[in-house]
Amino acid sequence: MKQGNKYGTHRVIEPKGILPQPAKKIDNTMEIYDNEILVDVQTLNIDSASFTQIYNQAEKDLKKTEEIILGIVEERGKHQNPVTGSGGMLIGTVKEIGPALEGKTDLKVGDKIATLVSLSLTPLRIDKIKEIRPEIDQVDIEGQAILFESGIYSIIPEDLPGNLVLSVLDVCGAPAQTAKICKLGDTVLVIGGPGKAGMLCLYEAKRRVGPTGKVICADYMDNRFDQIMKMGIADECIALDATDAVGTLEKIEELTNGELCDVVINVVNVENTEMASILATKDDGLVYFFSMATNFTKAALGAEGVGKDVNMVIGNGYTKGHAELTLQIMRDSDDLRALYTELFA
Amino acid sequence: MKQGNKYGTHRVIEPKGILPQPAKKIDNTMEIYDNEILVDVQTLNIDSASFTQIYNQAEKDLKKTEEIILGIVEERGKHQNPVTGSGGMLIGTVKEIGPALEGKTDLKVGDKIATLVSLSLTPLRIDKIKEIRPEIDQVDIEGQAILFESGIYSIIPEDLPGNLVLSVLDVCGAPAQTAKICKLGDTVLVIGGPGKAGMLCLYEAKRRVGPTGKVICADYMDNRFDQIMKMGIADECIALDATDAVGTLEKIEELTNGELCDVVINVVNVENTEMASILATKDDGLVYFFSMATNFTKAALGAEGVGKDVNMVIGNGYTKGHAELTLQIMRDSDDLRALYTELFA
Repeated sequence: MKQGNKYGTHRVIEPKGILPQPAKKIDNTMEIYDNEILVDVQTLNIDSASFTQIYNQAEKDLKKTEEIILGIVEERGKHQNPVTGSGGMLIGTVKEIGPALEGKTDLKVGDKIATLVSLSLTPLRIDKIKEIRPEIDQVDIEGQAILFESGIYSIIPEDLPGNLVLSVLDVCGAPAQTAKICKLGDTVLVIGGPGKAGMLCLYEAKRRVGPTGKVICADYMDNRFDQIMKMGIADECIALDATDAVGTLEKIEELTNGELCDVVINVVNVENTEMASILATKDDGLVYFFSMATNFTKAALGAEGVGKDVNMVIGNGYTKGHAELTLQIMRDSDDLRALYTELFA
Repeated sequence: MKQGNKYGTHRVIEPKGILPQPAKKIDNTMEIYDNEILVDVQTLNIDSASFTQIYNQAEKDLKKTEEIILGIVEERGKHQNPVTGSGGMLIGTVKEIGPALEGKTDLKVGDKIATLVSLSLTPLRIDKIKEIRPEIDQVDIEGQAILFESGIYSIIPEDLPGNLVLSVLDVCGAPAQTAKICKLGDTVLVIGGPGKAGMLCLYEAKRRVGPTGKVICADYMDNRFDQIMKMGIADECIALDATDAVGTLEKIEELTNGELCDVVINVVNVENTEMASILATKDDGLVYFFSMATNFTKAALGAEGVGKDVNMVIGNGYTKGHAELTLQIMRDSDDLRALYTELFA
């Protein structure tokens, strides 16, 4: 059996020597290297931007959608949308584990897992497309995939519905990072609080800051504010336009007696919300940008321009224990589980 | 005297209600509000990208360059290049201090200062352009400028040459942030170490990590490696291509016995160096992106794609004490002062 690289560079066909994600084509032969895991795939959960692009290109015809999906995997050895560059995740069952991983993984053959690394770097072979569910971007297939040694995954628990698990795992980095950065007594603002990532952040923030802290949920409209207050995952809800930095500052000053926030978590996928996030933060406070609409230069130059000594962090979708923490929230909170099942699963 | 807003929103003419930096036009009347500082301007140090654009547009004709500069300030009330969006900084003498700032500022009338906020948000009036020095992007003028309450500045010390001060203040955020994040015993990699910001970071990192730590200077070519080793501001210098993530990882693994770095500071203005920075960092380590070529999405998705639990920070050009710390380095190190005088002043 051949020895593989931790990051899967041994599978890269073109261009040689780079990582699987930026590669044009990777080797999807389903014979594993010594540090790989072979997975029998059940469902592809295609990234929403990617699925929308493919489905529109196919003029919402399922047969054409199927052809495009098969064509991508045929050409690239992975499901990476050539237009959006994005992938998605998959669910499947562990079929074989490379011997070099012995003692390094808690997986065993037969475990049902969701991969938490992107399909855009995962070797994939599709033998047959069984069903496409456009309303939730899912595709059931017969086929196989390879998980690299650096590949992260979550064992799907038996006590939670599969669709709910998939749905929350998609954003599990955000509440886990929230858990790492919020402390007892902190004032925390979550911009985009009523969203899928947002409510998990609110829940986790409230748990960390305790009764002496304050969690503020902000959104453009008073979307789900009643439910959020009733669940007790925020102390205040406020409607504001986060693209209006000055207006946001004024509202947050009012809510915090001019003290501003120790932590601002931005999970709203809207451009030009960097400055509102920065201005709402105390000196020496922390701004956590989880939104993919964040512009690096706007944040860096914006903070300097207003002379704000704040720490600005780029949201990392991975942190140790992120899947476990998020699934546990679904067990701990009956309210959130019911709401997420209704809205997102 | 009228009351002003801390961030200068009272000066914004168009569009109303936003911050001065994104505004199209601001009020450059030189009658101060109660919390403003009036400065007699001596020199504009125009942002390098901006000056190059203007100078090229003027076909390297000084008269045309002058007309473009005057035109920008006439139209916008500030020197913000409409193509690059960037500004620069200025040197001048404090002429008047608003009464509301009493006890809030250490400045007094007659102090010679450099503003550390961008010209792109600073109300400016130019009465006359006296000299343009294209080789160092500087323009001597007769004119005045306004510093807002949130505006940061540094008093120019008398014991250091003005040009050297200006040159190092331009990058003073980087060594100050380095001082905040490096600890005794850390292994620190500075990508772009031989540059203007880079060598200040190396110096400060070496001072923090001490004899039990290790500072590695990396650059594309072995530019100034001899000088850097001789000055003792790095323990190792290595030539590598930071756009090659896998190659960089291999070299850093070799240099660190596979342990990788506690801190990676990226100050190289080259695109696609995010992954090399991330892979060279230990789990739970910190990547500090100071380069304006950093792409937020590439960093965020890249770390998740390879399952690296690293903290990624957006470089803030401002932190308390940044100017003082950087000027002190110029006093503490005869070697660096001589080299910076030769290269950058």
